[in-house]
Amino acid sequence: MAETAVHQFPLRIYYEDTDAGGIVYYANYLRFAERARSEMLRAAGIESARLMAEDRVALAVRRCAVDYLKPARLDDEVVVETEVVKVGGASLDARQVVRRGGEALVRMELKLGCMSLDGGVARMPAELRRRLRDFVDGETTRAIQG
Amino acid sequence: MAETAVHQFPLRIYYEDTDAGGIVYYANYLRFAERARSEMLRAAGIESARLMAEDRVALAVRRCAVDYLKPARLDDEVVVETEVVKVGGASLDARQVVRRGGEALVRMELKLGCMSLDGGVARMPAELRRRLRDFVDGETTRAIQG
Amino acid sequence: MAETAVHQFPLRIYYEDTDAGGIVYYANYLRFAERARSEMLRAAGIESARLMAEDRVALAVRRCAVDYLKPARLDDEVVVETEVVKVGGASLDARQVVRRGGEALVRMELKLGCMSLDGGVARMPAELRRRLRDFVDGETTRAIQG
Amino acid sequence: MAETAVHQFPLRIYYEDTDAGGIVYYANYLRFAERARSEMLRAAGIESARLMAEDRVALAVRRCAVDYLKPARLDDEVVVETEVVKVGGASLDARQVVRRGGEALVRMELKLGCMSLDGGVARMPAELRRRLRDFVDGETTRAIQG
Repeated sequence: MAETAVHQFPLRIYYEDTDAGGIVYYANYLRFAERARSEMLRAAGIESARLMAEDRVALAVRRCAVDYLKPARLDDEVVVETEVVKVGGASLDARQVVRRGGEALVRMELKLGCMSLDGGVARMPAELRRRLRDFVDGETTRAIQG
Repeated sequence: MAETAVHQFPLRIYYEDTDAGGIVYYANYLRFAERARSEMLRAAGIESARLMAEDRVALAVRRCAVDYLKPARLDDEVVVETEVVKVGGASLDARQVVRRGGEALVRMELKLGCMSLDGGVARMPAELRRRLRDFVDGETTRAIQG
Repeated sequence: MAETAVHQFPLRIYYEDTDAGGIVYYANYLRFAERARSEMLRAAGIESARLMAEDRVALAVRRCAVDYLKPARLDDEVVVETEVVKVGGASLDARQVVRRGGEALVRMELKLGCMSLDGGVARMPAELRRRLRDFVDGETTRAIQG
Repeated sequence: MAETAVHQFPLRIYYEDTDAGGIVYYANYLRFAERARSEMLRAAGIESARLMAEDRVALAVRRCAVDYLKPARLDDEVVVETEVVKVGGASLDARQVVRRGGEALVRMELKLGCMSLDGGVARMPAELRRRLRDFVDGETTRAIQG
């Protein structure tokens, strides 16, 4: 259907995530986003360590645009939503939102590329590409959540 | 009884935790340990943000001794075990172990102190002290796990 | 004149900055960029801690768009170039580039806002605004480098 | 002579280093200490990336005991002092102190081991061992500082 699949990853804000301004340090939302993308892949049967060991590739962020709307604070529980927008032969567009109780705190638009560990761009392994396309179609997430 | 209470906190190893040596960066086990202590307190009804806002105190590590036995790696799932050894009027002794599948990777012995946000040592709020003592007695964790 | 002022901040890549892929973890370039902005301000006589204590404000990133062109690696020495593009009453546009030996590795475009520690947007203190405008005019940096 | 060599590494405290308690997060002193050890080695002509690439080894912390005496804060300038206490065939004892204006903030005692990237303990490359012994004798640091 037209319904978009969104992967949900909950996490807690700890001291390590905050700074002397009393809020989450701006770079740390990118750590949260990467954890969420890893868990989305893991839910689809793909592990980063195995991608590196067996296929000699890794997904690397080529571009990200981040909008900081409201800060998260110590002890907050937030959810990172991840949505795959487009899957190409060697790249991937995604959208991620960090929410607290439904309210959007940070929005990210990302372009990731498949990189060979030996340097340069690499075509995505077929299984990875197929699994990611399932996310666009919404099959994988629906399966997870159902 | 004499049985010791141990709080269990599971976590996953992400890219952010590793370094170019392919293993978890040594300082990051202290981040994991702090998350686990926060969750132990939260399980006992104590939140760090509330301690700061209402009681103007924070628990700070005064001393820690860390033994690195085996490294954790990307995608590993580990558990941080936390055990309160002794509770004083303004301080706390704890033991923490990071395990993977039962095997001890890192062992820590810590002394924490209650610090006033205005500087200097502070007596622990009565509720915090009582809750921590429950951990030594094993009541709280047994309640959580049971 | 039309010549733009660019602040230069050199830094070294350590183990803590890298990940199991053997390169700098993508969120860490934002840490480097923030160090560089802090040093640019410090060079102009502005310290973050003093801004918070005396003016009850902090500069916060509202938006950043990051292009990852080439990765930095362990032991690399890189330079973060910072350029103030526009200074408003409560906001600031900046461009930052992380370079290694002249080659651009990461490019960032940022919008920062002046935030009150009590919440909400705040007008920038006059001294801060004046100092930042000097950067746009190129006076401050030329003074530093000359 | 009996005079001990101490390597000095200055660094600045940035937002990324602090937490919502307004002070440097406890794990981050270990990051500072590692930077200082890397710079001590670099000053002696040894680079971590080259050790890994050419000798397939890395120095890993096996044990560290950390005493937190006073906190560092945003914008502080601190110095990490590093002293090599003993050099064995595959291990190394060191002492590190983080100071602000001469005052000791954090004291660390460390045992490092030489680890093969293929797993297990490895004998230190002869050049590394010789350079480290120079630090114990005080020759290298005197050369650097003189």
